[in-house]
Amino acid sequence: MFFSSDNAAPAAPEVMAALAAANEGYTSSYGADDIMDRVRARMRDIFEAPEAAVYLVSTGTTANALALSILARPWQAVFCHRHAHAEEDECGAPEFYTGGAKLITLGGADAKIDATELRTRGAETGQLGVHNIQRGALTITNVNELGSVYTVAEIKELCRIARNLGMGTHLDGARFANALVSLNCSPAEMTWKSGVDVVSFGGTKNGLMGVEAVVIFDPEKAWEFELRRKRGGHLFSKHRYLSAQMDAYLKDGLWLRLARQANAMGARLEAELGHVDGFRMVHPRHANMLFCGFPQAGHKRAQDAGAMYYPWPNKAPSGGSEVFLTCRLVTSWCTTTEEVDRFVAAVRG
Amino acid sequence: MFFSSDNAAPAAPEVMAALAAANEGYTSSYGADDIMDRVRARMRDIFEAPEAAVYLVSTGTTANALALSILARPWQAVFCHRHAHAEEDECGAPEFYTGGAKLITLGGADAKIDATELRTRGAETGQLGVHNIQRGALTITNVNELGSVYTVAEIKELCRIARNLGMGTHLDGARFANALVSLNCSPAEMTWKSGVDVVSFGGTKNGLMGVEAVVIFDPEKAWEFELRRKRGGHLFSKHRYLSAQMDAYLKDGLWLRLARQANAMGARLEAELGHVDGFRMVHPRHANMLFCGFPQAGHKRAQDAGAMYYPWPNKAPSGGSEVFLTCRLVTSWCTTTEEVDRFVAAVRG
Amino acid sequence: MFFSSDNAAPAAPEVMAALAAANEGYTSSYGADDIMDRVRARMRDIFEAPEAAVYLVSTGTTANALALSILARPWQAVFCHRHAHAEEDECGAPEFYTGGAKLITLGGADAKIDATELRTRGAETGQLGVHNIQRGALTITNVNELGSVYTVAEIKELCRIARNLGMGTHLDGARFANALVSLNCSPAEMTWKSGVDVVSFGGTKNGLMGVEAVVIFDPEKAWEFELRRKRGGHLFSKHRYLSAQMDAYLKDGLWLRLARQANAMGARLEAELGHVDGFRMVHPRHANMLFCGFPQAGHKRAQDAGAMYYPWPNKAPSGGSEVFLTCRLVTSWCTTTEEVDRFVAAVRG
Amino acid sequence: MFFSSDNAAPAAPEVMAALAAANEGYTSSYGADDIMDRVRARMRDIFEAPEAAVYLVSTGTTANALALSILARPWQAVFCHRHAHAEEDECGAPEFYTGGAKLITLGGADAKIDATELRTRGAETGQLGVHNIQRGALTITNVNELGSVYTVAEIKELCRIARNLGMGTHLDGARFANALVSLNCSPAEMTWKSGVDVVSFGGTKNGLMGVEAVVIFDPEKAWEFELRRKRGGHLFSKHRYLSAQMDAYLKDGLWLRLARQANAMGARLEAELGHVDGFRMVHPRHANMLFCGFPQAGHKRAQDAGAMYYPWPNKAPSGGSEVFLTCRLVTSWCTTTEEVDRFVAAVRG
Repeated sequence: MFFSSDNAAPAAPEVMAALAAANEGYTSSYGADDIMDRVRARMRDIFEAPEAAVYLVSTGTTANALALSILARPWQAVFCHRHAHAEEDECGAPEFYTGGAKLITLGGADAKIDATELRTRGAETGQLGVHNIQRGALTITNVNELGSVYTVAEIKELCRIARNLGMGTHLDGARFANALVSLNCSPAEMTWKSGVDVVSFGGTKNGLMGVEAVVIFDPEKAWEFELRRKRGGHLFSKHRYLSAQMDAYLKDGLWLRLARQANAMGARLEAELGHVDGFRMVHPRHANMLFCGFPQAGHKRAQDAGAMYYPWPNKAPSGGSEVFLTCRLVTSWCTTTEEVDRFVAAVRG
Repeated sequence: MFFSSDNAAPAAPEVMAALAAANEGYTSSYGADDIMDRVRARMRDIFEAPEAAVYLVSTGTTANALALSILARPWQAVFCHRHAHAEEDECGAPEFYTGGAKLITLGGADAKIDATELRTRGAETGQLGVHNIQRGALTITNVNELGSVYTVAEIKELCRIARNLGMGTHLDGARFANALVSLNCSPAEMTWKSGVDVVSFGGTKNGLMGVEAVVIFDPEKAWEFELRRKRGGHLFSKHRYLSAQMDAYLKDGLWLRLARQANAMGARLEAELGHVDGFRMVHPRHANMLFCGFPQAGHKRAQDAGAMYYPWPNKAPSGGSEVFLTCRLVTSWCTTTEEVDRFVAAVRG
Repeated sequence: MFFSSDNAAPAAPEVMAALAAANEGYTSSYGADDIMDRVRARMRDIFEAPEAAVYLVSTGTTANALALSILARPWQAVFCHRHAHAEEDECGAPEFYTGGAKLITLGGADAKIDATELRTRGAETGQLGVHNIQRGALTITNVNELGSVYTVAEIKELCRIARNLGMGTHLDGARFANALVSLNCSPAEMTWKSGVDVVSFGGTKNGLMGVEAVVIFDPEKAWEFELRRKRGGHLFSKHRYLSAQMDAYLKDGLWLRLARQANAMGARLEAELGHVDGFRMVHPRHANMLFCGFPQAGHKRAQDAGAMYYPWPNKAPSGGSEVFLTCRLVTSWCTTTEEVDRFVAAVRG
Repeated sequence: MFFSSDNAAPAAPEVMAALAAANEGYTSSYGADDIMDRVRARMRDIFEAPEAAVYLVSTGTTANALALSILARPWQAVFCHRHAHAEEDECGAPEFYTGGAKLITLGGADAKIDATELRTRGAETGQLGVHNIQRGALTITNVNELGSVYTVAEIKELCRIARNLGMGTHLDGARFANALVSLNCSPAEMTWKSGVDVVSFGGTKNGLMGVEAVVIFDPEKAWEFELRRKRGGHLFSKHRYLSAQMDAYLKDGLWLRLARQANAMGARLEAELGHVDGFRMVHPRHANMLFCGFPQAGHKRAQDAGAMYYPWPNKAPSGGSEVFLTCRLVTSWCTTTEEVDRFVAAVRG
């Protein structure tokens, strides 16, 4: 009964098998391995973007920070939701990689950026010429930090506003697959067809050991990205082990299968907990994350039964003596029906 | 017959087994996994340094750049050999992580820093007060970039000079195990007992997929390191997969066994090539890297037979039409006697 | 009738005379001039701080950014009001000089930081360990950006909160003299006795050509400041011309006389405009800045009569065709009674 | 008898008069003053470059660092002579402003970059793709740090090499006027007609209080420069005082008259010292700096007579007890024949 985070789940068996298969003999370093050629081809195919530049890094923070560094200069602003991972959970990595760009935080229900606020704050920014931080980039997250999924229409609107303000858009897709499965659209629709310029395409939270892709639709930015990646220490000599994971992930739709399982378990949690007295959703669930509340006694019973998850919004790990009512529950590709049902039973008592 | 680099070799079977074993169930993220506790204990034991802070990152460039960032401030100098990896092969990662420190490059035969030059350049640096870059840190590499190994006495002398100049010392041990086996001393003797403050303890070139440890003997620097690591995007959520590799590496002396094999194959190469007419060593071989020359016809035959290695010093990959006489040959943990002998036979014709 | 900004006024005659007097023969460079010795002594005397380090720079942005750079590390937060000059008008200079620290903006009426919000946001910051930006420093402005002056009690409270959160405090005193005259307290009371660690002590807006002092009460920070100043290009070779200006400014209380005149003219403006129908203050006036409103016809007449000032809050320069009701009026050391009265007469019609 | 540096001389009377004249009434801030319009026009005229962007800053370090920041990206190299001011005397300002670019130092007699070495090192740089620092910019100094002046032909050659390597060229003209007078060519010939892209056009060492221009021949770079200048704290609110100095400097050829006097005094020093037994030039003198040697007794007598200058190369100030033979002597716009003759008489005894 583990609902703390999808980043604590193991790697999928197909991924382990691919790693073992890749571990034969000598191979070219630094991304010149044959498997990476396959990854590039698969990714361009999936995104219907034959010109896209595709790179692998090993953490989501890196993917985001490097992506932003090619979209915003040091004297520019990056607009994000105030609950964005880039703002709250990366210890300033975007500032570090951009050379000191300013994150301007916006509000909006359920961690979705309010379009009007983006328009207003964007218009104000840089208005006084050289004295001000200039407009740089927009970054949105899908699935976002409060478990909501931007619709394609919402993405389009935000990207259009950004474009009108002279800015490019980054999509933090640490849970890209979960969002896609939830939206039931194509990767292209969720990204470049809606105006997204650079994507962090997560794998780690959905069955990989630690691999994220960065997909850049404008290949003009590719060389700068490569230099920044190397300079950041994120170019792997034994790159084949990243390639192999991503290759297995993309092969035969594994990434979608894993995400569907995670989302289905999220839906089941929501449905089953719905029968608990006093249960309520704090934010709508669109994928594999629930923000919800139920009576304290239920939390007590769940924890006594060994359930692991975080109270929310204070984020301290559960299991202590503190009293709380609302929490975050995250399912993953390896969450089982049995696990969900056992948890709900414990909560119910 | 692959002698291009030890970073193109696969991972050792023990490492693959450890990864598979670690891939069970949920576990704590970000280095709070149980396996990492074991790694810390093993490392402190190996270094006879019970207070040492131990961290894992995934590339050598990262290990070096982060290590230097806690030793040198932005307005300080990092003294290194002009052939240091930090100077020549990291695309400015040390400058990036330190916030703009200046690498001052020194000469010295066989890529070993000349002690007198360090003393002189060190004394000059910062002499004019605020107008000058100040003294910051020394970094040395063992095994170094031209295949030589600093003796313990040499390390001691350089560290003493650095200390007298008010500087700490970093040791780039991308091939730490190969150097240690070559010196036949203890890890403590090669490092803190000789005055080294921070070590990049490599694993990737010696049988891991992509894991390096950073060992910091003064725990006061640890928290800053952790923040810089996170900010650089180098803190892994699924940290267990780094832990498992390093744990297997340190267990039962695997790291030393692998390095002994690599070094032994280097020695065999040197001995057997010694019988080739016109063969000569360009730099002394101390571990698993040879810089040597032999007649062009030998290169032609080796390449025709499928041998892979780099000409040196121009570094362009072999196999093209260019004419060269001297080259770099690197053996690894998985180089076999048969491979060496087949190569020498090809060279001989 | 010029009320656009105090930074558009000329230099005081005493300052010009001091520059002429300093322009004799050769003198030591880079702050080693005799006049600077006098400046240091005067400043320490004024602040009752015999150990304080005193430096001169030429812009307020520089004073602020350098001051913050010695209080906050790259991975830390600087707490400021959302209308702080450091946040809104320095094009990211604090981010540049600190190496990427994050400015966390707070609310509070009349551009004074709300103490409760500081306490709450401060407590939240860094709560999640390494994943978060850490606490760094607090910066407050006196006179602040909306013309209000923090009382000594208010400064004490904010500094105490900052100290309890482990942070130092910077005071942006671009209009230090105006604030001091308004508070009628001692420089020490307004700063270190209330918990301020570093002060930007402005001169430019109050009769100098372009000189600001930075006063650092803890001399341990002085050397780092000197290196950062040089590295930023802010160490003047012909330093005597900065020294001479600041020396004249501090001599015989010139700085206070100039500020008293500016504040008195601000008070007169407020009093006289008070008789205008429809006049209202938007923020309280404590020194030499008014944020106020009056009917459009009055603006029209004032502009027709040649008055210069900015509408507020939109900040576009006046004189255009746009319609506005509220404005910012700034008086300076050289504003005259006649100028004020003529302006009020024009507004009245 | 002051020969320590031209940056210790006072400002020219014409400059003081211009400052006084500018000190009337209110004027627009931040470079929008009328005097700056005149400066721009004069500078474009002088350089025969009607499109050039012209900016004023207050120190030479700033001019250089900002100029380099628009020519080189963080992962690129700036090629300079190993005695360049940017390398030796700016405490890392170029690294700071470029965001961590690497200064690659070159040799060459008399502090003139050796063209062959530039070609070789330039060709090597970036050869290994992403692993290496990339080529960025060349910076040369005229008059250089050892008193030599590059000829127009030499500038052309170095700029051509840089251009062929894909790099722009910056000219550090802290002593631009002294070089120009020495070469007797036009400003355009010494700069853009020879391939220079950006010029630091010094005024401080030649009669101003602290003003340097940056002249950018490609106006596409102008906006980035403006943002970087502001962000560095180098945009002056009371800009008119910089404008007034530079305006007076350029008016009626004052800048050339001042430089001619300085150079003439340098020539006189060389000629008269030439009659001293044991006198020798260490580097050729082309403008207003001599690097020369004469017997210790002569130094003793000169210092006893109150002469001020630095021994060279160790740079410690004279007047102490140390023994030296070679020294640096710098003349300025206000050095007189009498001063020179008195010095030579003292040396002779």
